[in-house]
Amino acid sequence: MKLTELSKDINEWFNGSGPMSDVVISSRVRLARNLAGFKFLSKCSDEEKKTILETLKPIIMSLELGDGCFYCDVENASSLDRNFLIERHLISRNHAFAKGPRGVIIAEGEFFTAMINEEDHLRIQILKPGLQISECVEGVNQIDDSIEKKVEYAFNPRFGYLTACPTNLGTGIRVSVMLHLPALKITGQIQKFLNAARDMNLAVRGLFGEGSEASGDFYQLSNQVTLGVSEKQIVENFEKEILPEIIEYETAARNELLFNNIDTLDDKISRAIGLLKNAHLISSQEALLLLSHLRLGLNMHDHMGASTPAIDSLCSMREKGRDNESHPLSISTINRIFMLTLPAHLQLNYGKSLDANSRDALRARVIRSILTQ
Amino acid sequence: MKLTELSKDINEWFNGSGPMSDVVISSRVRLARNLAGFKFLSKCSDEEKKTILETLKPIIMSLELGDGCFYCDVENASSLDRNFLIERHLISRNHAFAKGPRGVIIAEGEFFTAMINEEDHLRIQILKPGLQISECVEGVNQIDDSIEKKVEYAFNPRFGYLTACPTNLGTGIRVSVMLHLPALKITGQIQKFLNAARDMNLAVRGLFGEGSEASGDFYQLSNQVTLGVSEKQIVENFEKEILPEIIEYETAARNELLFNNIDTLDDKISRAIGLLKNAHLISSQEALLLLSHLRLGLNMHDHMGASTPAIDSLCSMREKGRDNESHPLSISTINRIFMLTLPAHLQLNYGKSLDANSRDALRARVIRSILTQ
Repeated sequence: MKLTELSKDINEWFNGSGPMSDVVISSRVRLARNLAGFKFLSKCSDEEKKTILETLKPIIMSLELGDGCFYCDVENASSLDRNFLIERHLISRNHAFAKGPRGVIIAEGEFFTAMINEEDHLRIQILKPGLQISECVEGVNQIDDSIEKKVEYAFNPRFGYLTACPTNLGTGIRVSVMLHLPALKITGQIQKFLNAARDMNLAVRGLFGEGSEASGDFYQLSNQVTLGVSEKQIVENFEKEILPEIIEYETAARNELLFNNIDTLDDKISRAIGLLKNAHLISSQEALLLLSHLRLGLNMHDHMGASTPAIDSLCSMREKGRDNESHPLSISTINRIFMLTLPAHLQLNYGKSLDANSRDALRARVIRSILTQ
Repeated sequence: MKLTELSKDINEWFNGSGPMSDVVISSRVRLARNLAGFKFLSKCSDEEKKTILETLKPIIMSLELGDGCFYCDVENASSLDRNFLIERHLISRNHAFAKGPRGVIIAEGEFFTAMINEEDHLRIQILKPGLQISECVEGVNQIDDSIEKKVEYAFNPRFGYLTACPTNLGTGIRVSVMLHLPALKITGQIQKFLNAARDMNLAVRGLFGEGSEASGDFYQLSNQVTLGVSEKQIVENFEKEILPEIIEYETAARNELLFNNIDTLDDKISRAIGLLKNAHLISSQEALLLLSHLRLGLNMHDHMGASTPAIDSLCSMREKGRDNESHPLSISTINRIFMLTLPAHLQLNYGKSLDANSRDALRARVIRSILTQ
């Protein structure tokens, strides 16, 4: 499997399906584990890292996961390939730029990845579209159990699983959901959401943006504490308290736009259509923001039955695409544009590195060609 | 003549014709005059202002000017009407909001106006499209001579014509040109132009913007000093030194875009098309900026033979308009949209006052309907 094959399409977990997908793009659960009898990575020599890698890699590769797995040697990957893996959420930025022997095992369809020698010896994650935290937990636990049959994890009866950083101690679980909150942004209420998240001890990051800046109305929300809280409590807290409330706020804001501020709603959606179909230079930040507004329009139609001049014209673009048997303007197409126009995807598919201005020109060309098919 | 009749179309001087019209939109020359035997206006009672008005009005109305003149009583005009007259450059902001008896005489086609009781007893101006300063001077002097045959102006053999403000003393002449400098703006060189203007003692203002802010790449450039400089010197300075240099700079910047930065040029033009055809809310500031880019594209085609993907698509919009016998996308149509979507024009044509949000929605509707005909 070559990364250029992956780079032509989107991952399974990003196809716009799943429960509550008008607000929750995807769910992710990851576990942090370390092998008993080895130091934490910050104290390991390259030799020791190599031994850890060679211990874990064959065990995970031999698991029977869906259509199979492939391995990517992160240590020796090019900078472009490493950025590509980050953009697809297959490895973390830490893993990409760490030192020494390390790699990632990726299941076909990309619903599962195992990073070896990131911050901990092993980090495994399951990703699913929409709101499917319990399903992710179940999946990741099954895989974790299979691995644990073949290795001994560092475990302490009092603290639980031992991890390099104390924030992961205990269950070693991190639950994340990727949210699309355009209406809270447009109606000026996003700060309330960010404050509430902080009060609940949740971390908020951008979905694709570098660092922690949220870009294009996409937010990644995750728990920060694992010690002293059971896995069940964390999951229930997300599924029964946090997410229903956020979904309700975002839905209320969408209704507010639809019933009291159609001009603003239609302005955002129509401008996004006009710019995406016409611009000759688009930064990836702007593309995210504009695509976010198309996504909002289609979701308001499909989930709320909304009909406004701009939403209707989005829907007729979708119908036209269906007739032409080209890519209809579905949520999945929008997600596809998101991902394919991220800098590393763009360059990998183009076949060479490009400077920022050429990337902006190519991005605009790719978007125009998909949307005006 | 009612203002609502004027408000449906543009003035003659704004039709996009005339020499050098790709950079110089229009030329204006005005003279400031005061009647002998009367105080300056700041010292006049309303009675005295009325006498001045009644002295000057019939004299000017009886001049044989093109297709005739009509009078507008500014003192008793509604606030909307006064703002309309400002937007059309028929009266000044000072005149609109001064106190006491005052009015304006407007020639059909609006190439000539005479403000009575603005800052001076009389201010007459000639406006022509393109670079026609000498022609404006000739026209305004002829009218001035005709008036002077019937009244005695305040004149001092040493200082020349006496005016309320010493900056107008002497010839009382002010020469202004309205310039369109989008390429200097896009290429980041506009500040150089503003600095040079300041060094040459010229005033720079926005064309339609409130106050002195230049909006949408449109600048009004005028002389600030009249005393000790002859009319001929002022005109020659504009025609032979200042304007050729500015035109050369702007043309060089357009060439720079065309030969070294087509992506940026096409991005500006295509985004403008996309936004103007799609937006549901547009401020008058944004409309000016977007229309400025359409104007740039068409002028680069017509005056420089430029052909780029965005310019070609502008030209095909123009051809389509011609075939439909609707308004083709000419410079004159672009100017028409400029003017008809200014706040007072918009409201006068709509028939009632509107709040800012409703104006932005109506403006977007008017623009869409003209551009997607």
